[in-house]
Amino acid sequence: MATPEKRDLVSIDDLTCEEILELFRHADEFREDLRAWSNLCRGSIMATLFFEPSTRTRLSFESAMLRLGGGVISAADSASTSRAKGESLADTVRVVGGSYADLLVVRHPEDGAARVAARFASVPVVNGGDGAHEHPTQTLCDLYTLWKEKGRLEGLEVVLCGDLRHSRTVHSFAYALARFRANIVTMAYPGFEMPPYVVERLKREFHVQATPASVGDLPGIVGSGNSAAYLTASKPHQLALFTNITPVHLEHIDAIYMTRAQRERHRGESTEGYPRLSGASLRSEMLKDARVMHPLPRTDEISYELDSDPRAVYFRQAELGVPMRMALLAFLLGKIRLHSPPTGFRTVQPGLSFARGLRCRNDRCVVNGEGARYLVGDFRLVQESPPVLACAYCGSEATAALIGSAHTKVYHRYNSAEARRIKPENRVYFESEEQARTAEFRPRGDGEPESE
Amino acid sequence: MATPEKRDLVSIDDLTCEEILELFRHADEFREDLRAWSNLCRGSIMATLFFEPSTRTRLSFESAMLRLGGGVISAADSASTSRAKGESLADTVRVVGGSYADLLVVRHPEDGAARVAARFASVPVVNGGDGAHEHPTQTLCDLYTLWKEKGRLEGLEVVLCGDLRHSRTVHSFAYALARFRANIVTMAYPGFEMPPYVVERLKREFHVQATPASVGDLPGIVGSGNSAAYLTASKPHQLALFTNITPVHLEHIDAIYMTRAQRERHRGESTEGYPRLSGASLRSEMLKDARVMHPLPRTDEISYELDSDPRAVYFRQAELGVPMRMALLAFLLGKIRLHSPPTGFRTVQPGLSFARGLRCRNDRCVVNGEGARYLVGDFRLVQESPPVLACAYCGSEATAALIGSAHTKVYHRYNSAEARRIKPENRVYFESEEQARTAEFRPRGDGEPESE
Amino acid sequence: MATPEKRDLVSIDDLTCEEILELFRHADEFREDLRAWSNLCRGSIMATLFFEPSTRTRLSFESAMLRLGGGVISAADSASTSRAKGESLADTVRVVGGSYADLLVVRHPEDGAARVAARFASVPVVNGGDGAHEHPTQTLCDLYTLWKEKGRLEGLEVVLCGDLRHSRTVHSFAYALARFRANIVTMAYPGFEMPPYVVERLKREFHVQATPASVGDLPGIVGSGNSAAYLTASKPHQLALFTNITPVHLEHIDAIYMTRAQRERHRGESTEGYPRLSGASLRSEMLKDARVMHPLPRTDEISYELDSDPRAVYFRQAELGVPMRMALLAFLLGKIRLHSPPTGFRTVQPGLSFARGLRCRNDRCVVNGEGARYLVGDFRLVQESPPVLACAYCGSEATAALIGSAHTKVYHRYNSAEARRIKPENRVYFESEEQARTAEFRPRGDGEPESE
Repeated sequence: MATPEKRDLVSIDDLTCEEILELFRHADEFREDLRAWSNLCRGSIMATLFFEPSTRTRLSFESAMLRLGGGVISAADSASTSRAKGESLADTVRVVGGSYADLLVVRHPEDGAARVAARFASVPVVNGGDGAHEHPTQTLCDLYTLWKEKGRLEGLEVVLCGDLRHSRTVHSFAYALARFRANIVTMAYPGFEMPPYVVERLKREFHVQATPASVGDLPGIVGSGNSAAYLTASKPHQLALFTNITPVHLEHIDAIYMTRAQRERHRGESTEGYPRLSGASLRSEMLKDARVMHPLPRTDEISYELDSDPRAVYFRQAELGVPMRMALLAFLLGKIRLHSPPTGFRTVQPGLSFARGLRCRNDRCVVNGEGARYLVGDFRLVQESPPVLACAYCGSEATAALIGSAHTKVYHRYNSAEARRIKPENRVYFESEEQARTAEFRPRGDGEPESE
Repeated sequence: MATPEKRDLVSIDDLTCEEILELFRHADEFREDLRAWSNLCRGSIMATLFFEPSTRTRLSFESAMLRLGGGVISAADSASTSRAKGESLADTVRVVGGSYADLLVVRHPEDGAARVAARFASVPVVNGGDGAHEHPTQTLCDLYTLWKEKGRLEGLEVVLCGDLRHSRTVHSFAYALARFRANIVTMAYPGFEMPPYVVERLKREFHVQATPASVGDLPGIVGSGNSAAYLTASKPHQLALFTNITPVHLEHIDAIYMTRAQRERHRGESTEGYPRLSGASLRSEMLKDARVMHPLPRTDEISYELDSDPRAVYFRQAELGVPMRMALLAFLLGKIRLHSPPTGFRTVQPGLSFARGLRCRNDRCVVNGEGARYLVGDFRLVQESPPVLACAYCGSEATAALIGSAHTKVYHRYNSAEARRIKPENRVYFESEEQARTAEFRPRGDGEPESE
Repeated sequence: MATPEKRDLVSIDDLTCEEILELFRHADEFREDLRAWSNLCRGSIMATLFFEPSTRTRLSFESAMLRLGGGVISAADSASTSRAKGESLADTVRVVGGSYADLLVVRHPEDGAARVAARFASVPVVNGGDGAHEHPTQTLCDLYTLWKEKGRLEGLEVVLCGDLRHSRTVHSFAYALARFRANIVTMAYPGFEMPPYVVERLKREFHVQATPASVGDLPGIVGSGNSAAYLTASKPHQLALFTNITPVHLEHIDAIYMTRAQRERHRGESTEGYPRLSGASLRSEMLKDARVMHPLPRTDEISYELDSDPRAVYFRQAELGVPMRMALLAFLLGKIRLHSPPTGFRTVQPGLSFARGLRCRNDRCVVNGEGARYLVGDFRLVQESPPVLACAYCGSEATAALIGSAHTKVYHRYNSAEARRIKPENRVYFESEEQARTAEFRPRGDGEPESE
C-alpha cells in the first residue's frame, strides 16, 4: 500500500542516531528565525488525526507545519465523526492520506495504532502518541533539549523521576538515552517502577546493566522511600563487577527528568508523597549544573517558584518542540535531505522472520481493539533461543515454547533438533500446546512424515 | 439578500450537465499536480459551518481550499456555540458570510437548511449535506469517478445497492444518473427500497420508467430476497412495452454503488442479512468490467479483502473528491470560468408561481425546525393539474385539492372553471378545506363577488 | 516574563483614545479590499485559546489573521485537553506563546484570566472575553461602527437597552463612550440595571453624572416599567443642576444598543416583557437617524422584519469586526505603527502603589479560581481617602479601613496620623481587624516602636 521510499516516524527506532543528530542541526537552523521558512513546504498539507485529545502536541505540530508554509487540516476529536459510523483506522488513513494530505500525524488510544496507520497510508505517518506505546517526537524534543543544554548526549548522567511505569515518554526516552550511551538513574515513586520489559529490552538491545545506585542526598529531595537504580552500558570487564552488586556512587547529575503521575492510566493507586521538586530540592552540590526537564503538562510535581531558576528548562523544552518538528516534517516531506545512510545503525533489527501462530496478549494492542476485524497478528523474532517474539504493532513480547512447521502442521519443543530443522520461513511459533492445537497443529509422533 | 450574480451549490440541479462536465475537465487539470495551485485562491477564505459532524466531508473541502492557497475557518461543532445562545442559521450565515468568509460550506441536520443559508448569505454557499435532502458534492465525486473510469456517463448500467431509502447520496446520484441518461438498477435491502417520491420525480422530470429487472446471478451476491428494478429513460415506443411488465434482462453491469445501512436514521429496523460484497461476489461474468463504488465510510458491507481488487474504486472515489472540490470552489469564487451557458438545460425549472397557503408537511424540513420563527412556506409548482407543489427548501411534494384567490379570499376545487380564472400571481393552494378555513378563506357561494 | 515592549489588549483601557482612532483609520484601509493584505503578516502565527466556546469571536479573529496572510492554531475546547490533566493557564500560555504562536487570543470563563495570560506569555495577548470582566475587541467594533455611521463619537446620544447587569460588552462600551465624551441613556429591563460599581467608576474616572431622563415615547417602545437614566460628563456648573434632579429631556437619539438577556448568567430571573425592537419601535421622530446596534447573537429582542430597515446596522457591526481586528493584530504584531504616544491619555492610571494584604472578594475572579495555586493578590490603589483598591486582575474594588506597615507589622485606621506616616511602599491595606490579625499584624499600642 505504501510507496517503498516513504519514511514514517512510528517509533524513535525508525531514525538512526546519525539521522537524529542531523535533524538537531536542521532544527537549530530553523530556530534562528522561525518566521523565515514560510515557503519551504508551500502547497503541502498535514492532517492531524487525533483520536484522543492532546492540545499541546497537536498545536506544536500545527505550528511547525504552518511555519514551514504548509497547510493543516485537523480532526481533533474523531470520536464523534466517521468513527461513530464505524469506520476503521485503516480506512480513515487511506482516505485522508489519499489526496487530502501529504503527511499524517496520528494520535490514538491503542498501543500500536500508529504502525497500522503507517502501513495503510500511502503518505508518511508520524506517531503523535499511541496508547502506552510510543511518543517519538516527544523523545526527539527531550533529546534535542539535552543535546543543546549539554553539547552532547554520550556519557551524561540523567535521572528519571516519578511515575516511570505509566509514562510512555519516559520509556522512549530511556531507550534513546541508552542508544546514545547516556547513563540513566531511575528514581521511581514506589509502585511506579520502570516495567521489567523495558529493563529487559535495555539489557538485550543496548547491553545495559542495572545496578543499585547511591545518589547522595538526592533521595531526600525527590521523596524518601525511593531506591535508585543505575542503568549503564556494560563493558566486558564490568560484568564481574555487577555480580557483587556494589552500589554505584554518583557525584554529579546532568539532568533530572521529572514526570507527573499519569492518573488517567492508574487504577486507584495512591500518589501520596509523590516527589515534588522545589527550589530547596536543587541545593545539592551534585545538581549544580543539572537541568530540570519535564514533558509537561505538570501538575504539582514541580513548584512554580522553580520556574525562575535558570536550571529549569521545561518551558524551553516545549519551545524547542516547534523547530524540532519543523525539521522532522521537512525531512519526511522531502524538503530537506539527510546525508547519513538511512540503513545505518538501527537498534531494532527487522524481524528475523515472520513469526506466525501467536496472538498479541496485550489487551490494549490495536490488533485486539480497533484492528481486530482486519489485522492479523504480526511478530518480529527478537531473540532466537528461547524464541522471543515482539508484536510488530505494540512491541509486547512473548516467549515461544513450541515451533511448528507451516508445511507439516506438526509442532516440536523450540530447542529440539526437529524444530531446528524447520526452515525459518516455515516456522510457526506457539506459547503452549493448547495454542498449537487451536491452530490445528499436532504434536510429533502421530506417524506423520518428518521431512518438509 | 444575495448578490444577483452569485452561484450556490445547494442541489446537484444547480449545475447544468454541461457545467458538470466542464468541472470534471478542470478537476483533471488540478489533479495532475495537487500542490501546484497554491496561488489561485490566495486571499480568499472558506468557512465550514458544520452543525452536524462529518470529518470526511469537512476535511475534503478544507484540503481543496488549502491546495488552492485559500484560508479556512471552521465551526465544526456549532451545537455548543452561538446556536446554544439561540442564534438562527440565517443570522449565522449573514455574519460569517459578511466579512469573515468568501464562501460557506454548510452541513446541517435539517432538510433544506442549505437553501436557507444560500438565501441569506451574500457569498456562495455549498451544501455539505442537509438532513436527508441532498449532498451534491458527493454526487459530483461519484459522477466524476464513474466518468473517469468509464469515459462517459450516458448509457451506463449502474446498480444501486443496499439502503436506498435513507441514503441521500443515493437519491442525488439517481437523479444525476438519469439526467446524464445512465440506466439504474435498484437492488434494495428489503424494507429499504427507493422512496416512491424519488421514483415519481425520476418519472416526471426525466421520463424514467421503472420495470422489474432480471439480473442473472446478482441477487445471490448482494443478498437474496432483493428484487431488482430497472430505471431507464423511456422512449415513446417503449411505453407500450412497459405495460406488459416484461422483466429487463441485464447481461452487463458497469458499476455497483454500494451503500451502508444508515443506522443513525433507522427506527429500530433489523439489518440482518444486509448485502455484503466480497471477492466471491464479483466472480460473475457480468461484473467483469464493473467498478465497485461506495461513498464511505463503510462498515461491513464491503469486505477488506476486496480492497486489493482492481475493480474496487472506493478509495479512488474519495481521492477524486479533492480535485473535484478544488474545481467547484475555484468556479464559485470566480477563479475559473465555465463556458457553457449557466441558463442552459436544468432539470428543475423555476417554480411556475409562488404557491402560497401550504405548509411543508416534512417534519424534518427546516421551515418546521430551525426556520420556524423566521421563514414562511415557499413552494414551486412542479405540475399544473392536479397541482403538485414542491417545498422550495426540502423538495417535499404536496398535491393541492383547492385553489383560492388572495384577492377575494374565496377558494374553489382546483379543476373548476373558477379556479382557472384566478390569475396565477393571486393563486393560493390548499390541500384541504380545513387548511383553507384556517387561513381565513371561504368556500364559493357565500354571496361574495366572483370576479377579482 | 513579558518583554518590556510588547503590547496586550486585555482591557479597552490598554489603548488610548488616539490609538483607537488610528486603528479605525487602518481598519478603513484594510476594509477597502479585504483580500489584498495576504502578505502583511506572512510567517506569523496566532493561537486562539478558547476555554469557553464562542464561534463568532473565534472565527472573526481567525478570519482577520488569515486575511493578513498569517497562520492560525486553535484550541477551541480546551476543557477536554491539557486542562483536564490539570495544567494551569499560566503554563499553557507560556508554552503556546513560547514558539508555537506569535500572538494569543484568550477567552476564559474567569474574570481577569486574560490579565494572567498577558503577564505570563512572552507574546502579545488579546482578551477574547474573560468571564464577566471585559471583551475589548467587541467594544472596539462597537465604537468603530458608531464612528463610521455618525462620523464622530463625542456628544452622541446612545441608548443602552436590555440586560445591562450581565452584559460585559455593555459595561466596556459604557466606559469607552464616556472616555470619548458620548452621552449614555440607560434603559434597563427592570432588575437588570447597570451595576452600581460601573456607575461609580464612570463617575470617578470620567466625571460622569447620572440623572433621571425623560425619553419621550421611547419607554413604550422598549418595554414599559423601564426608567431611564442619563449619564453625561459633568461640567462644574452642572453639579448644582443635578442636585435638584430635573429629568433630562431627550429629543434625539443617535443609536440604540440592544442586548440580549444573558440567560446563561442569570439565576432564574424571569425575562417576561423583555424589550423587543420591531419596525413599530422605530417610528418615533426622535429615532429618525438612530442606528440599531446589537453585539449579536440576538435571540428575540430584535424582530427579523427590522433586518431590512436601513437603520439596522447590527450585521454591518459584525462585518466591521474583521477589518477592525486586522488593524489590531497588525498593530500588536508590529506590522503597522501608530503615531500617537502610547503613554498618552489613559483612563486608568497605574496603581499608586502595590496594595498588599487584601484578597479579591469576587468569587469568579481568576485569583480565586484557576490561579489560586500560583497567583497572589495584586491591587491598584484607585482612590486615596478612603483607600479604594481595585483587583489588578478582575477590577473588583474594595475599601480599606486599616493600613499597616510591612515593616513594623502594626496597623492603624486609614485616616490616622500614624497611617499617613507609613511610607507608601510599606503600606499594607486591610478591610477589617480580623483580616489584619489573620495576616499577623497587631493593633497600635502593644508597646511596639512606632517609627519605621
